[in-house]
Amino acid sequence: MLKFDEELYLKNGHITYETREEIEKIANEISEEGFSNIFFISVGGSISIMWPIQEMLKQMTNIPVFSEQAGEVVLTGHKQLTKDSIVIMASKSGDTKETVAAAEWCKINGFRVVSLVGTPEAPLEKASRWVIPNKAKNGVEFEYMQLFMFVFKLLYNAGEFDDYPAFANQIKYLPDNLLRAKQKFEPVADEIAQSYHDEQYNIWIGNGEMWGEVYLFSMCILEEMQWVRTKAVSSSEFFHGTLELIDENVPVFLVKGEGKRRVLDDRVERFCKQYTKKLVVLDTKDYELTGIDEKFRWILAPTISSALLVDRLARYYEKYTGHDLDMRRYYRQFDY
Amino acid sequence: MLKFDEELYLKNGHITYETREEIEKIANEISEEGFSNIFFISVGGSISIMWPIQEMLKQMTNIPVFSEQAGEVVLTGHKQLTKDSIVIMASKSGDTKETVAAAEWCKINGFRVVSLVGTPEAPLEKASRWVIPNKAKNGVEFEYMQLFMFVFKLLYNAGEFDDYPAFANQIKYLPDNLLRAKQKFEPVADEIAQSYHDEQYNIWIGNGEMWGEVYLFSMCILEEMQWVRTKAVSSSEFFHGTLELIDENVPVFLVKGEGKRRVLDDRVERFCKQYTKKLVVLDTKDYELTGIDEKFRWILAPTISSALLVDRLARYYEKYTGHDLDMRRYYRQFDY
Repeated sequence: MLKFDEELYLKNGHITYETREEIEKIANEISEEGFSNIFFISVGGSISIMWPIQEMLKQMTNIPVFSEQAGEVVLTGHKQLTKDSIVIMASKSGDTKETVAAAEWCKINGFRVVSLVGTPEAPLEKASRWVIPNKAKNGVEFEYMQLFMFVFKLLYNAGEFDDYPAFANQIKYLPDNLLRAKQKFEPVADEIAQSYHDEQYNIWIGNGEMWGEVYLFSMCILEEMQWVRTKAVSSSEFFHGTLELIDENVPVFLVKGEGKRRVLDDRVERFCKQYTKKLVVLDTKDYELTGIDEKFRWILAPTISSALLVDRLARYYEKYTGHDLDMRRYYRQFDY
Repeated sequence: MLKFDEELYLKNGHITYETREEIEKIANEISEEGFSNIFFISVGGSISIMWPIQEMLKQMTNIPVFSEQAGEVVLTGHKQLTKDSIVIMASKSGDTKETVAAAEWCKINGFRVVSLVGTPEAPLEKASRWVIPNKAKNGVEFEYMQLFMFVFKLLYNAGEFDDYPAFANQIKYLPDNLLRAKQKFEPVADEIAQSYHDEQYNIWIGNGEMWGEVYLFSMCILEEMQWVRTKAVSSSEFFHGTLELIDENVPVFLVKGEGKRRVLDDRVERFCKQYTKKLVVLDTKDYELTGIDEKFRWILAPTISSALLVDRLARYYEKYTGHDLDMRRYYRQFDY
């Protein structure tokens, strides 16, 4: 596989899964203290992987769930955000300015923060009441794993997700499955990148629990790391504006999930098949999850797309564009 | 003014304001029945003008507020959406498929729906428990006026917006003010459209209570009605991906509001001033609201931008592109 260490990947999966006990301990502590609602607060890629979970929770729990951009909520507050709330944050570097500032703001206000932090002793740790160490060097899918274990354990404790033990036992097999998905996707990624790396503009579409995936890949990877222009739009909203842009030469990338909103993706697919010659469909259904129950697939779908897109497709874009994924002209290059 | 009937506009403002009593009666009835939370449910342009209000409500009320895309919520449900909820919907045509289906779904489930309907006896009316007639032929700003009166009267009844009587009295003067804003903006709109109508790609940025405005104009006007490619991103999220696309020839449109998140717009402005020669700033502060208290301006800011963008700037785009605003190749042209 292109610029990819399979052994290290599985090791990262392993050390991520090893945090299960620690995560469940934190969840139990919070359940014991009690809480009235859940706030996801972060920025960019980190908030976008919380949105899928927020979408799932709408269907799974009576606990009200909100999400806020870190840089915004500190300016306005939010009447639902109180000392009874649980705030979930994440930052790979642990020093994302807005997220650290929001965590400190929460601390001052007495809001309880639990954070996924990818860098030990980073500033975000200090401002958080609880820390889930995000030990894997790479892989958004591993952050999903931790968020799933944490949030679904809270639900389990509230009597709302009886399947949690089975779910948590089975996601042990996720890294192996995702590695096989990556291997299977490798030639597809190569072909997509070869065909589309030079496109001036791309429409990315997805929905519900896949929306964060579409948002993240188009903005935080293609725009930030490849300087490729994108428009991301949800499968439902596509039909209320963006559809008029479609002609046979406009590339459309559709990321299909496996939840109840999949029919909206099907509709986009049917439409785009007719009106563009450049439709690429990424369907998580094409990838097996051995050892994992069918009923958990819709939840795990974003981990599959993440495994395929965020490093695999990105890596192949890099191969053809020659634009190093680490090159930035502005972001974190200087103060602004 | 270009293709604009000033007298008719003021008349539309007048007949909109005349619905105040009817709106307040509905609000009072709902307050009397009681409700546990508010759901905004609609699609496209209609949901996007509800988002600013949702953003304001975060700062104004202890009532939990949610928003859902009509086509999605009927597939998944939402655990917070119950018989105790109040659902707010809107459709100018009154026959938007997803919205009508969602209203009917609400009715079957016993969820109470109040709708803004622009066409008498449209299907949306039949599925709604209460109807606010949206009598003005045109003008998103008039829909805002009705939503403001309705939602803020609910807050007032809950003891949360004591300023309501003053607010509602003063927005009587809004149409005159918005007409003057349009007049002042006329040469600016002409200049912007002349300079930018041919651009292949535009970044639109705004934040908080202005986000819906940015979303609506970029997708429902520029994309749908002018087939112009856009990327809309919030002022806070811009710095987590999209900023890397900026170079001196990339057009950026920044819509500045007057709320607490304005500092985020200022940051975008400072950044973009340095790195593109094509920055257009639309600042609601440039337009007077005579007879209206300063403290209400941040609430009314989206009505100003709407008054400037949705028909004025759109009209001037049409002038220079020669692309009729009513021309669609797909939307509502056939089944898909």
